[in-house]
Amino acid sequence: MRILNYIVILVFVLSASCSSPKNKKHQPSLILTAGAVDQIKSELNNLPILQRSVSKLTHEVNEDMKLGVNVPVPKDPAGGYTHNRHKQNYITMKGAGVLWQLTGELRYKDYVRDMLVAYAEMYPSLGFHPVQKSYAPGKLFWQSLNEAVWLVYTSQAYDCISGDLLEEERTLIESQLLIPFANFLSIETPKVFNRVHNHGVWAAAAVGMTGFAINNNEMVEHAYYGVSTGPKDEKVGAGFFTQLDQLFSPDGYYTEGPYYQRYALLPYMLFAQAIDNNQPELNIFEYREGILKKAVLATLQLTSTDGRFFPFNDALKSMSYMATELVHAVDIVYAVDPSNKELLSIAQEQDEVIICDAGLDVAKAINNNEAKAFKWQSLEFSDGPKGDQGAVGVLRSGSGKDEQCVIMKYASQGMGHGHFDRLTIQLYDGANEILQDYGAARYVNVEYKHGGRYLPENKTWAKQTIAHNTLVVDNNTQFDTNLKKATKTSSEPWIFNGDDVKLQVMSAKELNAYSGVEMQRTLALIQDEEEIEHSVVVDVIKVAASENHDYDLPYHYLGQFMDSNLDYKAEVDVKKALGQDNGYQHLWLDGEASATEDQSKVVWLNNGRFYTLISETKEGDQVLYTRLGANDPEFSLRNEPSVILRRKNTPSTTFSAAIEVHGSKHPVTEIVENLKSNLVKVTTVYDTKDYTAVQLDFNSGHKKVFVICNQDNSMEGQHEIQCGDQQYKWQGAYALF
Amino acid sequence: MRILNYIVILVFVLSASCSSPKNKKHQPSLILTAGAVDQIKSELNNLPILQRSVSKLTHEVNEDMKLGVNVPVPKDPAGGYTHNRHKQNYITMKGAGVLWQLTGELRYKDYVRDMLVAYAEMYPSLGFHPVQKSYAPGKLFWQSLNEAVWLVYTSQAYDCISGDLLEEERTLIESQLLIPFANFLSIETPKVFNRVHNHGVWAAAAVGMTGFAINNNEMVEHAYYGVSTGPKDEKVGAGFFTQLDQLFSPDGYYTEGPYYQRYALLPYMLFAQAIDNNQPELNIFEYREGILKKAVLATLQLTSTDGRFFPFNDALKSMSYMATELVHAVDIVYAVDPSNKELLSIAQEQDEVIICDAGLDVAKAINNNEAKAFKWQSLEFSDGPKGDQGAVGVLRSGSGKDEQCVIMKYASQGMGHGHFDRLTIQLYDGANEILQDYGAARYVNVEYKHGGRYLPENKTWAKQTIAHNTLVVDNNTQFDTNLKKATKTSSEPWIFNGDDVKLQVMSAKELNAYSGVEMQRTLALIQDEEEIEHSVVVDVIKVAASENHDYDLPYHYLGQFMDSNLDYKAEVDVKKALGQDNGYQHLWLDGEASATEDQSKVVWLNNGRFYTLISETKEGDQVLYTRLGANDPEFSLRNEPSVILRRKNTPSTTFSAAIEVHGSKHPVTEIVENLKSNLVKVTTVYDTKDYTAVQLDFNSGHKKVFVICNQDNSMEGQHEIQCGDQQYKWQGAYALF
Repeated sequence: MRILNYIVILVFVLSASCSSPKNKKHQPSLILTAGAVDQIKSELNNLPILQRSVSKLTHEVNEDMKLGVNVPVPKDPAGGYTHNRHKQNYITMKGAGVLWQLTGELRYKDYVRDMLVAYAEMYPSLGFHPVQKSYAPGKLFWQSLNEAVWLVYTSQAYDCISGDLLEEERTLIESQLLIPFANFLSIETPKVFNRVHNHGVWAAAAVGMTGFAINNNEMVEHAYYGVSTGPKDEKVGAGFFTQLDQLFSPDGYYTEGPYYQRYALLPYMLFAQAIDNNQPELNIFEYREGILKKAVLATLQLTSTDGRFFPFNDALKSMSYMATELVHAVDIVYAVDPSNKELLSIAQEQDEVIICDAGLDVAKAINNNEAKAFKWQSLEFSDGPKGDQGAVGVLRSGSGKDEQCVIMKYASQGMGHGHFDRLTIQLYDGANEILQDYGAARYVNVEYKHGGRYLPENKTWAKQTIAHNTLVVDNNTQFDTNLKKATKTSSEPWIFNGDDVKLQVMSAKELNAYSGVEMQRTLALIQDEEEIEHSVVVDVIKVAASENHDYDLPYHYLGQFMDSNLDYKAEVDVKKALGQDNGYQHLWLDGEASATEDQSKVVWLNNGRFYTLISETKEGDQVLYTRLGANDPEFSLRNEPSVILRRKNTPSTTFSAAIEVHGSKHPVTEIVENLKSNLVKVTTVYDTKDYTAVQLDFNSGHKKVFVICNQDNSMEGQHEIQCGDQQYKWQGAYALF
Repeated sequence: MRILNYIVILVFVLSASCSSPKNKKHQPSLILTAGAVDQIKSELNNLPILQRSVSKLTHEVNEDMKLGVNVPVPKDPAGGYTHNRHKQNYITMKGAGVLWQLTGELRYKDYVRDMLVAYAEMYPSLGFHPVQKSYAPGKLFWQSLNEAVWLVYTSQAYDCISGDLLEEERTLIESQLLIPFANFLSIETPKVFNRVHNHGVWAAAAVGMTGFAINNNEMVEHAYYGVSTGPKDEKVGAGFFTQLDQLFSPDGYYTEGPYYQRYALLPYMLFAQAIDNNQPELNIFEYREGILKKAVLATLQLTSTDGRFFPFNDALKSMSYMATELVHAVDIVYAVDPSNKELLSIAQEQDEVIICDAGLDVAKAINNNEAKAFKWQSLEFSDGPKGDQGAVGVLRSGSGKDEQCVIMKYASQGMGHGHFDRLTIQLYDGANEILQDYGAARYVNVEYKHGGRYLPENKTWAKQTIAHNTLVVDNNTQFDTNLKKATKTSSEPWIFNGDDVKLQVMSAKELNAYSGVEMQRTLALIQDEEEIEHSVVVDVIKVAASENHDYDLPYHYLGQFMDSNLDYKAEVDVKKALGQDNGYQHLWLDGEASATEDQSKVVWLNNGRFYTLISETKEGDQVLYTRLGANDPEFSLRNEPSVILRRKNTPSTTFSAAIEVHGSKHPVTEIVENLKSNLVKVTTVYDTKDYTAVQLDFNSGHKKVFVICNQDNSMEGQHEIQCGDQQYKWQGAYALF
């Protein structure tokens, strides 16, 4: 596989070398092309979404241009004036470049030119940025990541006006700004440039796009293949193709999770579009079986039905496919594959297109009523460059606000932004989070909260195992919170089948997170109109351990507590933190109960619907009712509830539970329906090394038995168990009777 | 005034007595009229909103009719089967009656007839309902209120089919069901019937509408004027006209607040419509200068911009003008006054019209594009039948999602559903609650939560003074939580002027809530484009007391805490309830700070916008950071935050503060703007018995001074104060320099 990729690269090297620079008057060709300019001009009035996008851009550019050309000497950290000004400059320059092409109004060209000249006059005098906090400092900005982003935008601005500049202006701008700027990002800082990481992708895109914009083949080659770090270095530098090979799994999944995948996509998509415009013979969008298209579709699928990304790992919950990165990605992928009409409905929701050939295609197709509703599907996304480092599984049933979606993370660690959360689950009902992932503890760009950086609580709470809906062993965090250890292994996919809407199943194993403890978690999403109103999620965690351990199984539900069948005792006058470390120090103990029944129920209400969690409990089990917010000296955490099933001093054991989505409470008519679950009991009726069987008892008196094979996940295997009076026979890795 | 009303009533009595019952074949005339039936049939296809309303009704009626005619012997309490069945029966009967008129399909008529016959056969055998928990028990239901509602609906159903029944069917239904049913509600239970209360309105409407439906004038007169409670009783019984005189203030405000006003409106509107259809000469909609129209418009104005009612007093927060009561009210008032085109936009939002003449008018006008956007206004709503029992003030600036709205309650107690919350405020930004009123502690119809009734925490928390954004004296609740005492007085309006959008002011005094303590609260809503982005609310509470007291001023903010300028100390491992009683037992103390500066700031983030509360503080003041949820043994309360300014052992004092709405945090671009307030300082620069002046310092260096007259609220008074070097001269009750 590896070798194959090198061969592919070699072919690309040859073909790339054959392309010769153009010598005639430069026309825009990087993202916006001369051909698109002509078409946009003639068709703009007939394409409302494009028209709105141009109006929006015009408004934004005009507003900022009122402030004149400001190129301050770099001084401030992220969020400060010079940082924000240089950021806004590249955005406005790019916009003004596009508007120069579309309108021919000189003020746009002059603005970009004056700005670039001002930069060219300042740039050679700049040393490293005075705020030296980054492993990779920049010059205009405190970190070179922002520097690369600046160049990705600025190269587009330059591409739009360079054909209309005087020779001496071009020379000044290229020799004093663009070339040294690109060199700084590549040959002068090869370690960052060659790094397989989204920072490296931005740098490659910046350098490669500048190469196209100024007809510099060497730059383009650096962008493709990285730079050599010395004569003795036998390693091929990284570069764009390696990034394409290594940063996405074969399913297009990016290991840090969808929040960062969204961010990483933009330089990929822009550079790929630039390559496609300038070296169409490379068929870059076909590379690695269309990996970029897969990456975009994976990002879109990893959202709740309101478009917000599933917030596992470090992630802010409000981020969605409305982000500009996805506007670019959706348009560009649609232009590459116009058969995918579902992308058009997302573009409609975004209500914006990028102003270039791709955006034009989308605008035309929308106007032609070609849009189809986007379909969220049950899918498994493998992790790792080869797809062998676990996966993220997503099961969905129903649709729209009646869609139930359960997600399990059984992937690799996800690098520095990963959480210690193997086998964690999330549950959505429509766009509502029912069992939540906390996401990251961070208020991006909010100066009050540690300058907008990750909060200390991101480490002490959000990354810890107890912060997730997964089993905690001995009150400790997976891998003893050791990232290096965690990075070495991943969970193992066991079953994934989302084909039968009545019974969808996923199962995975985690053998390394806790030494001496092997875990397998199986989720079944069941729809059955005869028994249940919406759906039931069956949740079985089988734990194998030879020694005794303490187990905590948290469910971080969102909503208002309604009821529990246990005789719980709430803390009424004084409450205490649940523990000292590993995240436990952040939970207030609100109350607890002994599991006196073999079923422990918790009912909550969220946005007009009821949810019942039924856990099978054993003598000695406890149920803890907790709320987040202890040891939070700056009141930064969200004070949300959880329920924790605690089983102490036990070797191998199995946790069987189910969550039913049911009923409603209307906000205005105040009518309440089906506030009691149809499912009444969950019982593990058979549990050996080979098989686990869980019986579901319904209010109707009907029973169902769900059986999982723990040792054979083939579709062909024939199985048989005797369970009391009942004999069950089936083929494949699971069955429902 | 009283005498005048009796004369008016007398005139009505005479004119009512002159109307003679019709003797020809009965046509519907109660709410739906024969004329409307013809028009609806011919125009339905051209009126989409009416069409959707008929479709919705047809679907609902058909679905319920599938279950057949079920008239169970009454047994269950609210929420139980027989309760719900009898409730659904009246809804479906009324719908089926309407559909019989519109479609002529016999099955609808037969359904209503069979149902009524079944009731007629059962009713004479019924004693009081077995669940005897009400001061006014019913027969079908546990309380006679539901009984009256049953008859309001059923009289309409009967009106729709009675012209098509056999004589013997009519006789059976009237003599065994409708007449004894109406008698039970009136002459047999005169105390409830004569009560000035919304229960009395339902009873009057039920009896009066039945009177029209069966041509029984005596019933109509009982409904109008109440029933005599004995020969020696000199009092005129209450009845509908007394209810119209006494339940609404001259501004149309209902003393229990908008949540219950909404509920109370339905019988008023239906009965008034029935009167207008049957005795148009009474001009019922003109009665008391159009009090019903005023009541409906007041209800609509007492909402946030998403239509939800301001939740002061006992109120559920999700209730809005989408409720069926308001669908009726909006349609009927529009038909009475078709010049009010703003009502049409609300009808459009409701997306439903009632199926009768009024709904037809609305549907036609909507179809004719006559709708105008509803305008929320700054208004003061007087309380009490004569308008002399205080008021509720509402100031608004901006519009839509950029509207800031501040509400102050300086009204009477609001009967049994009132809270001890004089001078409390609420702040909205768009539809977002920024300073909240908790509303009621109740989950209506949710069996898990005390059967859906008011929770114990409604009394122990929601009604208490500390639960509101108003001053608490000596940790006690206003009027020592004594309803009788509270009912005797009301707050006193002092200033209300919402005319100048740049400076709107309201002020009120409360002299009785705490013995020995007189309070005046003044709110100014200031818009000033030069200094502030959205608006600033200035909040001044002037307290006069000769003895020392402890004062707590809570602000129940909603949102995520961002920052405070004080050196606060959070409780990290253990936290305790703030007190033992008067609501304090429900607050966890999260942290506290000594007011070491003369300004105490709290910043929070709600739905992408920042809010800064700046309170002037004095040496010795404390700031408490609290969270609701202590002493909540069933986890019923919402765990929301508050900040409390505490000033101990002080006689007269003044609390000056301001809340600024500013900045933004975009959910997707993550761009943060203006996270710091423009207002930086609030200082009381002058404070005597006669005048209070508060200086506002802005970031720009500019200063403003807001002056209030505490003893002269005339518009004409000339005033002058010397404040340091500055002399201020003005005319009227307040000024801004």
